[in-house]
Amino acid sequence: TNQYSITLLPGDGIGPEIMDVTVKVLEAVGKQCDIKFNFQTALIGGAAIDAKGVPLTPETVETCLKSDSVLLAAIGGYKWDNLPRELRPETGLLGIRAALELFANLRPATILPQLIDASSLKKEVVEGVDIMVVRELTGGIYFGQPKGIFTSETGEQRGVNTMAYTVSEIDRIARVAFETAQKRQKRLCSVDKANVLDVSQLWRDRLIKMSEEYPDVELTHMYVDNAAMQLVRNPKQFDTIVTGNLFGDILSDAAAMLTGSIGMLPSASLGANRPGLFEPVHGSAPDIAGQDKANPLAQVLSAAMMLRYGLNEPEAATKIEEAVLKVLDLGYRTGDIMSEGAKAVGCQEMGKVLLQVL
Amino acid sequence: TNQYSITLLPGDGIGPEIMDVTVKVLEAVGKQCDIKFNFQTALIGGAAIDAKGVPLTPETVETCLKSDSVLLAAIGGYKWDNLPRELRPETGLLGIRAALELFANLRPATILPQLIDASSLKKEVVEGVDIMVVRELTGGIYFGQPKGIFTSETGEQRGVNTMAYTVSEIDRIARVAFETAQKRQKRLCSVDKANVLDVSQLWRDRLIKMSEEYPDVELTHMYVDNAAMQLVRNPKQFDTIVTGNLFGDILSDAAAMLTGSIGMLPSASLGANRPGLFEPVHGSAPDIAGQDKANPLAQVLSAAMMLRYGLNEPEAATKIEEAVLKVLDLGYRTGDIMSEGAKAVGCQEMGKVLLQVL
Ligand SMILES: CC(C)[C@H](C(=O)O)[C@@H](O)C(=O)O
Ligand SMILES: CC(C)[C@H](C(=O)O)[C@@H](O)C(=O)O
Repeated sequence: TNQYSITLLPGDGIGPEIMDVTVKVLEAVGKQCDIKFNFQTALIGGAAIDAKGVPLTPETVETCLKSDSVLLAAIGGYKWDNLPRELRPETGLLGIRAALELFANLRPATILPQLIDASSLKKEVVEGVDIMVVRELTGGIYFGQPKGIFTSETGEQRGVNTMAYTVSEIDRIARVAFETAQKRQKRLCSVDKANVLDVSQLWRDRLIKMSEEYPDVELTHMYVDNAAMQLVRNPKQFDTIVTGNLFGDILSDAAAMLTGSIGMLPSASLGANRPGLFEPVHGSAPDIAGQDKANPLAQVLSAAMMLRYGLNEPEAATKIEEAVLKVLDLGYRTGDIMSEGAKAVGCQEMGKVLLQVL
Repeated sequence: TNQYSITLLPGDGIGPEIMDVTVKVLEAVGKQCDIKFNFQTALIGGAAIDAKGVPLTPETVETCLKSDSVLLAAIGGYKWDNLPRELRPETGLLGIRAALELFANLRPATILPQLIDASSLKKEVVEGVDIMVVRELTGGIYFGQPKGIFTSETGEQRGVNTMAYTVSEIDRIARVAFETAQKRQKRLCSVDKANVLDVSQLWRDRLIKMSEEYPDVELTHMYVDNAAMQLVRNPKQFDTIVTGNLFGDILSDAAAMLTGSIGMLPSASLGANRPGLFEPVHGSAPDIAGQDKANPLAQVLSAAMMLRYGLNEPEAATKIEEAVLKVLDLGYRTGDIMSEGAKAVGCQEMGKVLLQVL
């Protein structure tokens, strides 16, 4: 029996509901595959603010560091929106990314044939889209110093953030990206703004340098404005995309929305010799929290990503992914992906049918 | 007779061809409206690099500053892509924006019913889309100091750019945005990343402050990642968007591509008491340069924006805009917007039919 210690961070909004379903799915697949999960739950985001006054406590970091993998649901909500930035739920998320050194964020955007009509794009444009965005997650403008709101000699306020990357930061995310591309269609598009930004110039130079070690991967470069356009115009041209923290934030969300069903998309954040963190792309949806309306499938698929990328249990991962496709084939849909003729189910009910087909 | 001195910057690639057509259209509409244009042509971009060794000369800046308005076509091309950044065509564009203090960039993204099928989005999603992106153009990370590639004590290279805005920079673009929204649907969405960036926090605070002076405009805020998603999901929700230089670069291109026909989109860059600059959203398309295949309509519509926003000649502007709609109604199409059953024309031919219907 393989045993894993998993930290659960249910967070806010719909987080606890979708986590609940996911734990049941993990336990069921664990039985089938002879895997034992030891779960512990910790606080993050608004839940941590309410209980401890800060969005991330040292105890939560400690618990995560000691576990084999971390499964996060979602954080944030109107309730905490007007707190100063240090005390906002998002700051807890940035904190755990930094603490676990989760420098590589993998965000797949895949069109499922069952849900293709949910896309706002024409069927022929999105059919078969299968993009992996590799986003740098612990550097760039999210963490660069100096930052703050400063008052100049003239008494005027000036807001400042710094977008910076060192060679080693670029090289390590480049490695993950090339290796990811190797397992896919072997086409890597690096997105930057090298026609304007010095930091992008260094980024591009390093990517070109690193590509010498991966002759089987075709490396191309695209400016971020053009990439935003091309994702809309013809998303099928992309296989693997690698980019910095801020551009990755924007482009991975745009890519996710091409599918029309972000309630279906998982993500993986990986570090160096530390537990990875796995979470859905969608947010905490405070407007439907506690109403059993949430779609748990992105969270369930995040658990599958955890099994595959974090715990090296591909068989169990595949079982979960197949179960998700099966419930879709059977016509079960939560509200966000509902379509005519399908069977409407709530969050818990979706969990039950998953267990039945697993 | 109103007289205007206009500096033409044809630039590179298809630039000269589409400028040619546009000058003829301006002269024709000038005759009808009793306006006299005095044109002078100056070098910028690759053309300036080839002739003078730099992408922008003091003479060109001088000529622009002395004129009433500047009409730019497009810059750049493969030929100059490997030069160091200071010598690249883009640097000339950034230079003229700075020299003319063109802090406000207006980028409309409008779906023309005649071209709705060109969109990669479903008809019901894009029908009626009419968005104006107001992008700050002379601040933010494009110009912030410090910037460069520095070597640390450990000998490692680090690329750095600075995203910064002062209160006065934010306030002046906010004013343009609120006033633009007042002339439209009175809904202004400010896009930032205030959950992560200090500079965005100041941006948001100032927008809220400024909104007190514009009680008739509804101000909302959206994070840039969500804005990229919402543009794809439901672009009709937007009226006027205001954002910083980098986010505006990305989002205005995404918005433009929703139309499926960026060969149709003009833009205006306005300064404080200086001549404005008007240019199409599309690039220099070096692959089709000199082949009489380019679509001149975005350039022609940029001239209309010049008449409306730069020279306060709305009647002449409207005449040009109506002529463009008329040639589309008559079924004339260049290659980029060609559809079944339409009449294929080249760049010059498109110019001729424009003159006929003007
Ligand atoms: C909540 C926010 C801080 C976060 C980010 O910008 O990274 C989110 O948008 C994401 O993409 O995970
Ligand atoms: C060419 C480039 C410097 C420019 C920019 O980034 O501003 C272009 O993309 C634009 O949007 O006008």
